[in-house]
Amino acid sequence: MSIKIGIYGYGNLGRGIECAIKQNEDLELVAVFTRRDPANVSILTKSATVCNVADVEQWKDKIDVMVMCGGSATDLPEQTPALAKMFNVIDSFDTHARIPEHFANVDAAAKAANKVGIISVGWDPGMFSLNRMYAGAILPEGKDYTFWGKGVSQGHSDAIRRVEGVKDGKQYTIPVDAALESVRNGENPELTTRQKHIRECFVVLEEGADAAKVENEIKTMPNYFADYDTTVHFIDEEELKKNHSGIPHGGFVIRSGKTGWDGENNHVIEYSLRLDSNPEFTASVIVAYARAAYRMAKEGQTGCKTVFDVAPAYLSAMSGEQLRASLL
Amino acid sequence: MSIKIGIYGYGNLGRGIECAIKQNEDLELVAVFTRRDPANVSILTKSATVCNVADVEQWKDKIDVMVMCGGSATDLPEQTPALAKMFNVIDSFDTHARIPEHFANVDAAAKAANKVGIISVGWDPGMFSLNRMYAGAILPEGKDYTFWGKGVSQGHSDAIRRVEGVKDGKQYTIPVDAALESVRNGENPELTTRQKHIRECFVVLEEGADAAKVENEIKTMPNYFADYDTTVHFIDEEELKKNHSGIPHGGFVIRSGKTGWDGENNHVIEYSLRLDSNPEFTASVIVAYARAAYRMAKEGQTGCKTVFDVAPAYLSAMSGEQLRASLL
Repeated sequence: MSIKIGIYGYGNLGRGIECAIKQNEDLELVAVFTRRDPANVSILTKSATVCNVADVEQWKDKIDVMVMCGGSATDLPEQTPALAKMFNVIDSFDTHARIPEHFANVDAAAKAANKVGIISVGWDPGMFSLNRMYAGAILPEGKDYTFWGKGVSQGHSDAIRRVEGVKDGKQYTIPVDAALESVRNGENPELTTRQKHIRECFVVLEEGADAAKVENEIKTMPNYFADYDTTVHFIDEEELKKNHSGIPHGGFVIRSGKTGWDGENNHVIEYSLRLDSNPEFTASVIVAYARAAYRMAKEGQTGCKTVFDVAPAYLSAMSGEQLRASLL
Repeated sequence: MSIKIGIYGYGNLGRGIECAIKQNEDLELVAVFTRRDPANVSILTKSATVCNVADVEQWKDKIDVMVMCGGSATDLPEQTPALAKMFNVIDSFDTHARIPEHFANVDAAAKAANKVGIISVGWDPGMFSLNRMYAGAILPEGKDYTFWGKGVSQGHSDAIRRVEGVKDGKQYTIPVDAALESVRNGENPELTTRQKHIRECFVVLEEGADAAKVENEIKTMPNYFADYDTTVHFIDEEELKKNHSGIPHGGFVIRSGKTGWDGENNHVIEYSLRLDSNPEFTASVIVAYARAAYRMAKEGQTGCKTVFDVAPAYLSAMSGEQLRASLL
């Protein structure tokens, strides 16, 4: 019997979830919930139903885990606790500063309903968090570094597009090689924002726009670009579409630490991702944790969890015996 | 109140455990158990007692977790189940083929005594296993690669030293760069043993030994060297001591896999270690899992566990709130 999954919100992430479910035999997509008119939303999975979010309560007993695919800014803070009253839920909430508050809200709702909610699943927060935690527990006397990229930052691309005279644009975050090398060599450098990442922008101008003015406005934009070495390339729409329509991303979590009675030996633990599609990879992580949510709920666990609380074996379709025999 | 740790066996690993405990404020080394005369064993921790293994039962209520530091060939298969009748135990059993049997023995003993036993902890088995498992659960349509090195292989160094005419020797296992690159590029190559690793040997000859004969005997040794490209360097004892007395190791676990409705996007997950001291790093992993064993036993869990069964948060000295606020 397969684990029945619902998708709540059908954008890039929702479609990624749908694709990831297809790769896992023990999971089945039963319904996609949208705020749009279901008649106008076509999905890839023939056996699944498209429903309006208003009808979600009718699916209370037909879905084992609801995957929340809204945005972190306004959707998930409302939706995840609300849906946790009816379903086991999982989300990719990524507003770091608001995680404690979101955790508390989902925890209260899920506990009251005897459900499990797993929040902030993906790669950062998610697999990167997990690797920071494992490495820190293993090497308590050490230093953590997280580098992002090379990849498209949605927030920074949006910021470019808000500049007057910009028709379209994409921004890549790129780790600085020299910084990465220094960290890998165990040098434990103190790195400024500028020393860790560079920002590369590809911009399509509106007709008649002043390129120099646009470039200056981007490079001096506080928070987004002013603290970085930023390069701006002006290209035409065709080139943007041809070479910059993917959503690649990735990054590195590195911890360098000492062991020995007098800290005489150094060790470097590195975890890295090179992703062709940020939303599809995020979805693949979420789907593995959806399996975990189902199993933990089956065992009678309730309340809010994060990747720190989920024993690894829950993620795998393999049994404990299989895991020990083949992967240990 | 600190978690009271015992060390059973005081070789390289036992000393590594002692050093790792020093780095963790919530852990305390209370006793080291040795087969030797305790009067002849001096340890670094002034507050801890050295005892003979024969007296271990007297420590039944004074130790929260016993760290088993014997060898996998003959010590651990006997000792870990035997000690699990009295203590929560943890070991680094690494004979892959015998893990299912060892698991069953420790599980039966630990369950009967209401204790927790965690086996096969370290980096491989251990952190590498965990990364193979996480990556496989996230990217079910993909391929796993494990590379070891650059590092000293104890088994291969021993094999060199058994060759007639060899006074001393060290063997390094080194991943082949071209293979690593191909895997990282998502090419999913089929790699032979020879294509994955090379073996480099540093040999000190007995006086009058025939270098050509020794070199040939090493290079053609079945299982150990015959399937690899092996280089043999003859050096003098002084150089061996000066340049090859460390025990570095490390390696790479890489999974490359596809996502998307038609597998159109590729992703590479890589975990790597660069270790100055193999036993000290192994010990650091074990000590974090000793904390987990204590906590799981406190909660009433019993029986044998592996890294797959231990929720990450149990490893960290931080609370759930702290982890969510600082590392998620």
